[in-house]
Amino acid sequence: RAILTGILFFNVESLPELMLINNVAGKMKKKVRIAIRLNPDVTAGTHSYITTSKKENKFGLDFKTAKKILEKRGDFPNLSIEGLHVHIGSQITKARPYRQVLSKIVKFIKILRKEDIRINYLNIGGGLGIVYLKEKPQTAASFAKNISSFLRQTNAKIILEPGRFIAGNSGVLVAKVLYVKETPSKIFVIIDAGMNDLVRPSLYGAYHNIVPQVKISSKFSKPIDIVGPICESGDFMAKGRFFPRVKEGDLLVVLGAGAYGFSMSSNYNSRPRAAEVLVKKNKFYLIRKRETYADLVSKEIF
Amino acid sequence: RAILTGILFFNVESLPELMLINNVAGKMKKKVRIAIRLNPDVTAGTHSYITTSKKENKFGLDFKTAKKILEKRGDFPNLSIEGLHVHIGSQITKARPYRQVLSKIVKFIKILRKEDIRINYLNIGGGLGIVYLKEKPQTAASFAKNISSFLRQTNAKIILEPGRFIAGNSGVLVAKVLYVKETPSKIFVIIDAGMNDLVRPSLYGAYHNIVPQVKISSKFSKPIDIVGPICESGDFMAKGRFFPRVKEGDLLVVLGAGAYGFSMSSNYNSRPRAAEVLVKKNKFYLIRKRETYADLVSKEIF
Repeated sequence: RAILTGILFFNVESLPELMLINNVAGKMKKKVRIAIRLNPDVTAGTHSYITTSKKENKFGLDFKTAKKILEKRGDFPNLSIEGLHVHIGSQITKARPYRQVLSKIVKFIKILRKEDIRINYLNIGGGLGIVYLKEKPQTAASFAKNISSFLRQTNAKIILEPGRFIAGNSGVLVAKVLYVKETPSKIFVIIDAGMNDLVRPSLYGAYHNIVPQVKISSKFSKPIDIVGPICESGDFMAKGRFFPRVKEGDLLVVLGAGAYGFSMSSNYNSRPRAAEVLVKKNKFYLIRKRETYADLVSKEIF
Repeated sequence: RAILTGILFFNVESLPELMLINNVAGKMKKKVRIAIRLNPDVTAGTHSYITTSKKENKFGLDFKTAKKILEKRGDFPNLSIEGLHVHIGSQITKARPYRQVLSKIVKFIKILRKEDIRINYLNIGGGLGIVYLKEKPQTAASFAKNISSFLRQTNAKIILEPGRFIAGNSGVLVAKVLYVKETPSKIFVIIDAGMNDLVRPSLYGAYHNIVPQVKISSKFSKPIDIVGPICESGDFMAKGRFFPRVKEGDLLVVLGAGAYGFSMSSNYNSRPRAAEVLVKKNKFYLIRKRETYADLVSKEIF
């Protein structure tokens, strides 16, 4: 309920959700502005976990159902359906999925217009890919160029939410080398950050570039694994990297950790979560305190 | 440092770690009792993330290196190497990997004995599999029967750590159905627990049995997906299940959530973590308070 009154748009994912919001809004005697999330059934070409607009995904409404709702919007007297929303996935590097989906949306908006249904806002979501390794994602400029002709045809105010695009490469994870372990078959660099701090390698098989904090000229003789101190083999940051010969105490910098990094972090293995530090030019500010062991049990009732 | 003084055994995973502990113990003027973790290079037959005793895993020392350390234990005057440790993985349902590894350990202990190196403690780890679906794991009795002849030959006190075996099926995750979403291609039951609460399905492709809190006789006409409210398609609890026809507000019980459930939970999508309730016969006790939105920002510095 708190959300309903505080938010500009509530992106509605399904008919039962729509009815629920209409009911709650009625009880609160509020008119709630909403947008309908569409599921345009396009392929975003990204990891299956972050593909969100195929018809087999849980997100959004198909065009047909959305149209019916808009035609019968009088049935939802406590809702003001003002927008459409689409979000096709995350870490999308190509222009094509965006063009595909917007072409569908423009067509839909034109159909609605003929029935005198006006859409004031169009939320085109996010998902703009960033560079982790060798990706060659669209720049903001090329993205704008690729989609602007579609957007103009909508006559709608445009909302977009390119979270990773802004945050991803704005954040790094700094970790210390606990020790280097050479076994007869492999070399492991064991660091004090684990899958609880950054789960993307383990969860999505994601690649993060990792560099030592200072330049080191010599290299390990063979590819190494960079792993955390957690009690499972899923706890890795990097596998099979040709890497500078770091040693105990050296700092490593895991790049691209600004999105889906801290926000997905956990206390797995009783590990307090990291501190967050904001760096602005040559100044830095602690903006989130490191968790302590006491924090881990602060909600326990003994 | 705190750990060194408080713990019975420190399971040492590598030579540099051994040297580190020896140095720290020296500075603290303490003699620290440790066990050497062995990597016996056996296949546990479980998910690669929770296989921990192949030579390409980060864990433990190979027999040859361990033997060298034990022979030169005088080089580590602040350590008392009293035990061996082995942990071959997690959710292992077969007896064979245990027999394989213990046969190797017994052989190793006998070789050491000839050199007058005595092992007082043997930690055989955990990893005993439990029933999530149709697994037919060893019972405690059959496990004991399978390994006791090996254990007797070690003349060591035995330590074991069957965490999941104890906790896994002692815990359930209770979730409420937010709504049922029928799309032209699928049926989704959307619940108020997500991958932030239980990441096992998403991270390990794990199966959890899910049942309604009360018996419901009718079924959905086709297999359904049970998903959480988080903004990615990786947020699922179950896929393609034949399932009772639950509706909004019904409670679902996710079984087998006592291990790697809450301990791996996160605040992803700004979701406060669940409360924990202990049930003892017909009484229940809140043992961990539900997190609040205020908790999510309690470490932030504004």
